[in-house]
Amino acid sequence: MSVPTIEFFWDAASPYTYLASTQIEALAERTGARLAWRPFLLGKVFEATGNRMPAAVPAKGKHLFADLRRWATHYGVPLTMPRVFPVNSLLALRAGLVAAEAGQDAAFAKAVMRAYWGEGRDISQAEEVAAVAQSLGLDPPTLLARAGEPSVKERLRANTEEAVRRGAFGAPSFFVGEALFWGNDRLVLLEEFLRGRLAA
Amino acid sequence: MSVPTIEFFWDAASPYTYLASTQIEALAERTGARLAWRPFLLGKVFEATGNRMPAAVPAKGKHLFADLRRWATHYGVPLTMPRVFPVNSLLALRAGLVAAEAGQDAAFAKAVMRAYWGEGRDISQAEEVAAVAQSLGLDPPTLLARAGEPSVKERLRANTEEAVRRGAFGAPSFFVGEALFWGNDRLVLLEEFLRGRLAA
Repeated sequence: MSVPTIEFFWDAASPYTYLASTQIEALAERTGARLAWRPFLLGKVFEATGNRMPAAVPAKGKHLFADLRRWATHYGVPLTMPRVFPVNSLLALRAGLVAAEAGQDAAFAKAVMRAYWGEGRDISQAEEVAAVAQSLGLDPPTLLARAGEPSVKERLRANTEEAVRRGAFGAPSFFVGEALFWGNDRLVLLEEFLRGRLAA
Repeated sequence: MSVPTIEFFWDAASPYTYLASTQIEALAERTGARLAWRPFLLGKVFEATGNRMPAAVPAKGKHLFADLRRWATHYGVPLTMPRVFPVNSLLALRAGLVAAEAGQDAAFAKAVMRAYWGEGRDISQAEEVAAVAQSLGLDPPTLLARAGEPSVKERLRANTEEAVRRGAFGAPSFFVGEALFWGNDRLVLLEEFLRGRLAA
C-alpha cells in the first residue's frame, strides 16, 4: 500500500493548531504517514464559511484559556496567553511558505507557533518572524523580502482557497486524501483512521 | 477526600451528548466519581449565550455526520442520522426529570438518546417517549402527565439557567464543582482532572 499523507493546514493564530503541532509528528511516525505542513489563513476560512473564532461567543471565550491550559498540561507543552490576541498571522504564514523552500517547513511552523503560544511573542511583527528564522539558520532579510513577493502571497491564498473548497471551516484541518479531520481533539480519530480502523 | 460528583448536563437533541452518554458511566467508575444526570435545554443555552449548533455553519453541518460516524465506530455504539433533525427535545427532557423521581435518571437519559441517535426515532413525539418509559418499567400515562406539570417544567428551566450561570454554552457540559468540561471530546481531560493530573 502507498504511504498516506497527512496534509496539516495550520495557522499560527489558532491555539488548537499550536497544540496539535506539538503532537502531529509523533502521530505520523506511529502510523507511518507522511506529513505536509500547509499554511493557510484562518480568518479567510471564517469569512468564506461563516464560521467564527471561539472567542466570538463570550462564554466560550471565557472558557477558552482554561481549556487550552488543560491541553497544554496534558501534553506537557508550554502555554502563555499572548497579550496580542487575536494576532495577524499573515507575515508568519507567508514566511512559513518561504521556509519550506529551504526544507524548513516543519521546523518553522513549530517554532513560530511556539513563539506565539508558548512564549507570547507578537508574531505579527517582522522582528519576531525574523528571530524565528534566525533560530533556524535562515537569513532573516532574505526570508522577509521573499515573503513579500506576489508569488508567495498567491500561494497562501491558493492554500486557503483549496482548503475551503475541500471542506475545511476551521483550524487545525487535517486531510488524508479527501477525508477531513478538524481540531486538535480529533487527533485520536485521525490516528484510528490511519490505522485502518475507521472509514472516511 | 470526599467523592467528586460529575454533573452531566444533557440534551437528547445533541449528538455529541449521546456519544458522551455511552462513555460517561465507565469513566465515573474508573475515577471513583459520582454521576448526576441533569437535563437542560440546549436551545435556550444557545439563545442565552449567542452560541449556535454546528449545523448553523453549512460546511460544518456537511462534515457533522462523518465526524459522528467516526466517533460511533471508535466507541462501538450505534448511530443513525435521524430523519427529524434538529428535534424538539422538550418533552423528552421533562420526562427525564420525572424518570429521575423513580430513580431511573441514568437509564432514561441513555435510553432516550439511544432511541433518537441510535435508532432515529422521533423523540419529539409523546408515543416515542412513552415507549422509552415502558421499556424501563415506568407507566407511560403517569409519566407523560407528570411531565406536563408546571413544577417539572420549572425544574428544566432552572437546570438550564443554572448551567448558563455557571458558564455552560453548549452540550454536553460536565461540571466537577465549578470546573467546566465541554464536549464529548473533552472526556479525556475530565478523566485526567478527576485523577488529579490537571488544575481546574
